[in-house]
Amino acid sequence: MKALGRQPLDRPPVWFMRQAGRYLPEYRELRSRYSFEEAMRTPSLAAEITLQPARRFPLDAAIVFSDIMTPLTAWGVSIEFAPGPRLPPLELREVAMLPEFEPGKVDFVAETISIVRRSLDPQMALIGFAGGPATVLAYLLEGGGSPNFGGLRAAAHDDVIGDALDRLAGMTRAYLHLQAEAGADVVQLFDTWAGLLSRDQFTRWVIPAAKKALAGLGLPTIYFAPGATHVMDEFHLVGATAYGVDWRLSLAEAWRRVGESRPLQGNLDPALLLSSPDRVRTGTAKVLEEAGGRPGHIFGLGHGIFPATPLTNVEAMVRTVVEWEGYASETRQAG
Amino acid sequence: MKALGRQPLDRPPVWFMRQAGRYLPEYRELRSRYSFEEAMRTPSLAAEITLQPARRFPLDAAIVFSDIMTPLTAWGVSIEFAPGPRLPPLELREVAMLPEFEPGKVDFVAETISIVRRSLDPQMALIGFAGGPATVLAYLLEGGGSPNFGGLRAAAHDDVIGDALDRLAGMTRAYLHLQAEAGADVVQLFDTWAGLLSRDQFTRWVIPAAKKALAGLGLPTIYFAPGATHVMDEFHLVGATAYGVDWRLSLAEAWRRVGESRPLQGNLDPALLLSSPDRVRTGTAKVLEEAGGRPGHIFGLGHGIFPATPLTNVEAMVRTVVEWEGYASETRQAG
Repeated sequence: MKALGRQPLDRPPVWFMRQAGRYLPEYRELRSRYSFEEAMRTPSLAAEITLQPARRFPLDAAIVFSDIMTPLTAWGVSIEFAPGPRLPPLELREVAMLPEFEPGKVDFVAETISIVRRSLDPQMALIGFAGGPATVLAYLLEGGGSPNFGGLRAAAHDDVIGDALDRLAGMTRAYLHLQAEAGADVVQLFDTWAGLLSRDQFTRWVIPAAKKALAGLGLPTIYFAPGATHVMDEFHLVGATAYGVDWRLSLAEAWRRVGESRPLQGNLDPALLLSSPDRVRTGTAKVLEEAGGRPGHIFGLGHGIFPATPLTNVEAMVRTVVEWEGYASETRQAG
Repeated sequence: MKALGRQPLDRPPVWFMRQAGRYLPEYRELRSRYSFEEAMRTPSLAAEITLQPARRFPLDAAIVFSDIMTPLTAWGVSIEFAPGPRLPPLELREVAMLPEFEPGKVDFVAETISIVRRSLDPQMALIGFAGGPATVLAYLLEGGGSPNFGGLRAAAHDDVIGDALDRLAGMTRAYLHLQAEAGADVVQLFDTWAGLLSRDQFTRWVIPAAKKALAGLGLPTIYFAPGATHVMDEFHLVGATAYGVDWRLSLAEAWRRVGESRPLQGNLDPALLLSSPDRVRTGTAKVLEEAGGRPGHIFGLGHGIFPATPLTNVEAMVRTVVEWEGYASETRQAG
């Protein structure tokens, strides 16, 4: 929370995407007994999974265990995870006409957050999240994942997409509000596929929807759109508190593009965590050096951790961040 | 060929990636009788497939029917297509130690080109191609396709990648030389996954390898790396004659980034071809207007055509280009 407020710190806080997930043996053990959907919809199980990574690593934040497709179930959309989401595809016009979203139908997420809140170290931040409207639309039009999300890309040439995204933005905002009320300290919007659209389409369609989804929540917000370096100059128009960045550009260049005064989160390539502890330490140090002690840096991965990641490499990354002493001298110099 | 030489033209030439492929009923009919590998390795069949799109649409170029993994078979790498390539994965060090490439072992590609050359309208250009070294390496390390090519991304932190890419660049150059000798007018390097690497990694590893693969071939070359807008400022270092660009940035912005004097190829989003002829005509006209009659534009798609594309939409796109009269007035004004 201090990093989001750009307060000077001895070292950046650290958490990472999919930290509660398949690379953890305790997660796989639990999932051997419960399906993904059971685990996600049962608050005690979802809370347990949310807390798992913090027991193993000295992290500074927990992120609620859920899925970006979860709020759609409030509309009666039936989703299977195999392991990616599968659902009956909708037409663009059908999305634009979805009825009012009732967050009460997904209040298991709020209950998960309440449980985590009670058990979590008060020094740790609790992160809620939702999918970006354009990303949720991509799955809805396709009926699941896709190598290219042609449906979203074709839809971006049709003005009806504005209504569809507006409808999803309203849902997303209500869903994030539910999480804020339940005790989330900060929320992140995962706009995983928005970067498939052109710069013009992103500016015209994605940004207003993301902005609406994050507006007026009364808590700090993080916007993350990987693979979207072609629109990074426009990110600030989303109006989030901070921006997640992937590994494609250095933090220094990302700051130039997103705005020097805006907190950034990132950006170690999770693929490096498939290598060795030594390489991970070197790569982690490089990111920390790039950040150079600048206030407003949250250390994280440039995308979700790979399920095949060895625990020793995660340990090497997190330890390198929490034991980092490179900032002290730079802060002194600055002072 | 004139567009590659930046000669003024009444309208840009048009061809598109995967124009010889699954969206064509005559291709599907032929493939119902022969496997992908049989079709590709039998010169008469590969030549027939290469010529199919030109019989249906007034195109300005044919591209030899093959696959970017094909040259690897000269090393005895056994590849299945299901439909994406599957092969036994190699370690980075194994790639770096692959023996000398013998192009004679894939001379069926040369024979295909010779056959096409004899049948092709002499007004049409014949395009040979290869995968970019970094892209071929991505498949080799993974043993096929991947949603994220973590192997390549992890390898980019290991200096051995330089030797592996150099080895693949040598192979690629020899393979492209074979195609040039057989009668290709121009060759394109498809560096489909290179854009997954960071700007620093791309500059350090991808560019020298792509440059070596295209050097001294004695004919015009096209370099195409989709999803690589973060490194577009560096593209010119590859030293290709022209650059393919995807749909993420407008042609105007792409020219600013790649260099105003360099020919560009692109950049309609192939996803738009899933919509209606009217939308396709509007989108095609928009690309043509962006090009604005500038010499050195080859009209094409920003990536390969989707197999589900309706023929009427392809027809609408190609007709809009070949009947384009927008340039005439601009050329007059310029004169």
